Amino acid sequence: MIKARQAIKIEEARDRLLQFDKPLDQIDIPVDDSIGFVVAEDQYAPVSIPSFRRSLYDGYAIRKEDDGPFPKEFTVVGNVPCGFVFPGELGEREAVRIMTGAKVPDSAGKIIMLEQTETTENPQKVRILDTHETDNINPIGSDFRKEDKILSKGEKINSGTISLFKAFGMETISVYRKPKAAVLSTGSELLSAGEALQDGKIYDSNKPLLEQLLREHGSEVTYSGQLADEKESIEKELTQLAEEVDLIVTTGGVSVGDFDFMADIVLDNTFLFNKIQMRPGSPTSAAMLGDTLLMALSGNPGACYIGFQLFIRSYISQLLKTTDTMIETKAVLEKDYLKQSSFDRILRGQYRFDANGQLYVTPVGSDQSSSLGNLHQTTCLINIPGHSNGHKRGDTVQIWLL
Amino acid sequence: MIKARQAIKIEEARDRLLQFDKPLDQIDIPVDDSIGFVVAEDQYAPVSIPSFRRSLYDGYAIRKEDDGPFPKEFTVVGNVPCGFVFPGELGEREAVRIMTGAKVPDSAGKIIMLEQTETTENPQKVRILDTHETDNINPIGSDFRKEDKILSKGEKINSGTISLFKAFGMETISVYRKPKAAVLSTGSELLSAGEALQDGKIYDSNKPLLEQLLREHGSEVTYSGQLADEKESIEKELTQLAEEVDLIVTTGGVSVGDFDFMADIVLDNTFLFNKIQMRPGSPTSAAMLGDTLLMALSGNPGACYIGFQLFIRSYISQLLKTTDTMIETKAVLEKDYLKQSSFDRILRGQYRFDANGQLYVTPVGSDQSSSLGNLHQTTCLINIPGHSNGHKRGDTVQIWLL
Repeated sequence: MIKARQAIKIEEARDRLLQFDKPLDQIDIPVDDSIGFVVAEDQYAPVSIPSFRRSLYDGYAIRKEDDGPFPKEFTVVGNVPCGFVFPGELGEREAVRIMTGAKVPDSAGKIIMLEQTETTENPQKVRILDTHETDNINPIGSDFRKEDKILSKGEKINSGTISLFKAFGMETISVYRKPKAAVLSTGSELLSAGEALQDGKIYDSNKPLLEQLLREHGSEVTYSGQLADEKESIEKELTQLAEEVDLIVTTGGVSVGDFDFMADIVLDNTFLFNKIQMRPGSPTSAAMLGDTLLMALSGNPGACYIGFQLFIRSYISQLLKTTDTMIETKAVLEKDYLKQSSFDRILRGQYRFDANGQLYVTPVGSDQSSSLGNLHQTTCLINIPGHSNGHKRGDTVQIWLL
Repeated sequence: MIKARQAIKIEEARDRLLQFDKPLDQIDIPVDDSIGFVVAEDQYAPVSIPSFRRSLYDGYAIRKEDDGPFPKEFTVVGNVPCGFVFPGELGEREAVRIMTGAKVPDSAGKIIMLEQTETTENPQKVRILDTHETDNINPIGSDFRKEDKILSKGEKINSGTISLFKAFGMETISVYRKPKAAVLSTGSELLSAGEALQDGKIYDSNKPLLEQLLREHGSEVTYSGQLADEKESIEKELTQLAEEVDLIVTTGGVSVGDFDFMADIVLDNTFLFNKIQMRPGSPTSAAMLGDTLLMALSGNPGACYIGFQLFIRSYISQLLKTTDTMIETKAVLEKDYLKQSSFDRILRGQYRFDANGQLYVTPVGSDQSSSLGNLHQTTCLINIPGHSNGHKRGDTVQIWLL
């Protein structure tokens, strides 16, 4: 059945999606397992770092009052390796041998670099030859004072964040649980890897693609399957899944064919859109099933990939209250693309910088919706606006860095 | 003990490292578990894609000979959903209803879009109103012909690569095993997360940082520990580890202090360097222990992080015969940095693009070697060359995008 669809702009489709939100539970997880999660609460320093006055150099600690004029001899009364503490108090012209990173004795006010000293005939004595004006001591809290805000909620945890948590001795961290996603392909033509190829059938490459993309971008895939070729069964399955997951992604069945049930299903629920002014992927459709987003992507690999990048990534980031890492900017096109279309044309592309840091892009592989040979080479998407005559080499184009 | 060290340039240090290589075994792993691995053999298409002539539209398949002039009525003799095959042969003015993606009957030469047809009073008949010049058929092998090269060895597997493998029905893939790394911290001042903080001691944040960075960049961490504070024990442990891993990364003990045994150990083995003309991290040292790289990084978090990014990433990529994802380019500095140094100053930074795709960078947080508060915010490294007067806002600087 052919129903008229109203094609909306990419931005409008995104806005409609992002009207919806859903609170995700906070969970405490071990810091060691927290890579890729999003911090759910502002974090404050539990202690100061450094928590003691820290020597910046290997050398000798002396009292402030004994700082110059040099040269001058000092009696060495102790030795403080890292992790140890000098138990006594420094007297006049007394020095303590100290290592970089070790705790400066409370009575000391200055660190003399080892390179500015020399040994003497008496092993108990050191001769200080010269010094800098700086005291060469990192004061308590010079990195972080106790109670300083060290991290805002919504930040995604990376290797640097792990080291920050560890520096404070933290063992667990409060994060948002990952949104749960179900991925479903449609179409009786689909075979799974390992099955023998049959005439007229194809291997399902979209479901595994979407599973990987979802995991990569902060979601967890809790269900993966294939939808029946019958509307009532599909509706029943989706309604049940909507109770269990935060996000349902389907691929295929959004066009005008006899078996394109997804097109009807979005109309039967809280309808968001069923046509976008873009190619590939114009029949990309979406609806809310309760508070679960149903995102019905095209079954064409190119359209499926682009639909994920332009819509699902933003929605996952919104659920996690974090910022997507996809960067929207402009770049210089390195190759003519003159095909005309009334809709925006989203090309898979690759970017590079010239010697001065100017961004350039080139389409990679085929622009066909059905083409799957260039997804692994794609590092950005290029937008050739609709109702234009395409773009020439040297023109500036809108792009998204993935 | 203070020994004169010869400081070499960053590029020279990198060249010395990359003289060494070590063949890694190839292993066959399931495609589903292959994200982040590197393909060990050129891959060729086991079948053509599509493997049959594929309809580009929902509509009707007709013989080439019956293509126009339209309008004209056809007898509908069959229906081919996706995944099915029309068993018969088309006769004159016979049409088969067909879906997008379905196999075009061998006897058909043209697909008419559904939108260009209308039903008639007779349900067995369809009226074709008009058509395009194109045949609307994807020929066999239009994406890939059987035996086409689909992937070169050395490519890192991403979500797009997974979909490519799956499209060919592949279940396993031959990859290089990941390089095995040992990570060791030195210093009796180090506590582990969860231990109570003691005066003069600090929590070890470098070991967890390096573990995460190594995993993120294609290595596996098979050993993680703390080195003794005694040279002979360290030598014994490193010698043994060198038999078991491909890469040993230590943090701390590279300076001139009494407990800086790593400085001696690199001299006792196949020496690469023990001083680099950069800050932070000038005492970064390296040696080969047989065919295992010993990379001795500074114990300062900033220096440790930079040392990993500038040296270890390249070495791992070389072992895996792949290209590092770190991009070296230039960008416009957004803030004065006027501190002078005889060595190159490597700043942790963040980048952004302006409206036209020009890259800008700003230092983030502290430039101090000991500072750990900005690693999680760092998206690039900025090089302020030695023997300069620093750089002013608006100057073009060399950067590495991480």
